Amino acid sequence: MNSSNEPVAVSNVTIVGGTHGNELTGIHLIQEWQKNNVANEYPSLELNYLLANPAARKANKRYLDHDLNRCFKKVDLENPALKSLEQQRAKEINQLLGPKGNPKTDLIIDLHTSTANMQTNIVLTRIDLFHLQLAVYLKQELEDVVITSEKELMTDHHFLESIADKGIVIEVGAIPQGSLQFDCYQKTENAVKATLKFIEIFNAQQLPLNKPSQLDLMSYHSKINFPTDVHGEISACVHPNLIGKAYPLIVAGDPIFKSFDGTDIEYQGEPTHLAFINEAAYYDQQIAMCCCRPISFKLEDYELAKQSG
Amino acid sequence: MNSSNEPVAVSNVTIVGGTHGNELTGIHLIQEWQKNNVANEYPSLELNYLLANPAARKANKRYLDHDLNRCFKKVDLENPALKSLEQQRAKEINQLLGPKGNPKTDLIIDLHTSTANMQTNIVLTRIDLFHLQLAVYLKQELEDVVITSEKELMTDHHFLESIADKGIVIEVGAIPQGSLQFDCYQKTENAVKATLKFIEIFNAQQLPLNKPSQLDLMSYHSKINFPTDVHGEISACVHPNLIGKAYPLIVAGDPIFKSFDGTDIEYQGEPTHLAFINEAAYYDQQIAMCCCRPISFKLEDYELAKQSG
Repeated sequence: MNSSNEPVAVSNVTIVGGTHGNELTGIHLIQEWQKNNVANEYPSLELNYLLANPAARKANKRYLDHDLNRCFKKVDLENPALKSLEQQRAKEINQLLGPKGNPKTDLIIDLHTSTANMQTNIVLTRIDLFHLQLAVYLKQELEDVVITSEKELMTDHHFLESIADKGIVIEVGAIPQGSLQFDCYQKTENAVKATLKFIEIFNAQQLPLNKPSQLDLMSYHSKINFPTDVHGEISACVHPNLIGKAYPLIVAGDPIFKSFDGTDIEYQGEPTHLAFINEAAYYDQQIAMCCCRPISFKLEDYELAKQSG
Repeated sequence: MNSSNEPVAVSNVTIVGGTHGNELTGIHLIQEWQKNNVANEYPSLELNYLLANPAARKANKRYLDHDLNRCFKKVDLENPALKSLEQQRAKEINQLLGPKGNPKTDLIIDLHTSTANMQTNIVLTRIDLFHLQLAVYLKQELEDVVITSEKELMTDHHFLESIADKGIVIEVGAIPQGSLQFDCYQKTENAVKATLKFIEIFNAQQLPLNKPSQLDLMSYHSKINFPTDVHGEISACVHPNLIGKAYPLIVAGDPIFKSFDGTDIEYQGEPTHLAFINEAAYYDQQIAMCCCRPISFKLEDYELAKQSG
């Protein structure tokens, strides 16, 4: 490894639960880890825990005024006019872990769940050598893991984990809101442990590992709304063929919705993979599912860029 | 049929959705039925629809202050001191459909969903010839139907449907809160249609049908709480073996919970069937599941009682 490009060690890691107050898995994970002093198993790291939205957790709601995980754009954090419960809480968290741009925390792992079958979804909001290597490692170490990118959606990202220079969202599903399931807890814990293990390997400068030379991930490109009636009410269900499916490919002519009277509605459009199928948290926006496509990154390109940089 | 015991016709029927604001199936069913004038298909009945808790529906919550479906004890409806949003709404609904004891509505069908696999759960709060005959009919006509009784729990019942002299709850699951699935919608609609068909048969005095001579149903006898830690927090998940199961029988020694560290916790107690397994709506009370046992009623006993009465 080129000594002029020695990586800066990742030492301060914050594990966040309850950014959405009705996603109990992450909330219980940080409680259990604190109770059992799991940090002792990672002596080279400074592990912190944060219950991000205690008010929403108490109310057993995703959020009270605004979705907290949409409040972390730098421009919003610096806007004194934004004063809702979550907007204020975002600023508090930014003081605690950030500030964004010059953060106290090196890496944030933000724990989420989905009512859709997202498997173990590792969400990236930046594509660089560190995050690609991390994603490659997680794909090797975990079962039923999918890497998705939300980097494309914005530059100044609105996710909580964007406060730090490094971070991921771990989102496991399907699980109903406001409930726990051991399988979901275990998948989440396995993903957190694998991430921490990767950080130890990274800090020990044992990268690159023997690894695939490219990373395949899913990149979002659009959303599909529910059909609605003249009153603006949802007028059809997501088609039963799609319920419970993980990232299926659909093509024009495939049934995508089923009206309450049983009539199939066909998809019209370019072939696409689907994610967040029938996600309960998106009903308020009448989003039925999100569309994504596989893209590949050659790690070599990023290694060369880093060495020449 | 004994002419002195001719049944009083059931003409005014109210179908209720949204007693719990985040159970979307019933809400959409009454919207669709209104939109499509389904009442025209039942010319002998006066069909009404009620969105029971519009405030909770708007907030996408089960309730705001109190569970509306626990607010209909006569003693509570008559208590002027009870003034929370749902307590007041209960009094409004009691004026609209009741008053309890002398109701304007003959029969209430209250539509619910569950995050647990309850199949098509027909809930009775009274055991008499009418409701037994109805339940027998629904068991013949519907797939995956289970009759449960909540009569045992109280005499002055707290359910909304107890305002009328006749009524049932139809509760279909598993489905996450705040979402729709066509299968769940269809099961609910089939159960409503079969109930209305039964009422037509009843009104035409074509009962008793060629039917089984007894009704088997599940009767609740207790609840099982989650294990908790010293902080009062849930310390284990419902065991994966039980997730998604419909009314399984457990016996002492069967695993019932799994601690977050993976340790199985065994059930200790008399053999029992389980319902509402891991129901998200019961986490606020830390109820993990409910216990029930099969009981049988001979319709003959009720027919004889009716004739001699």
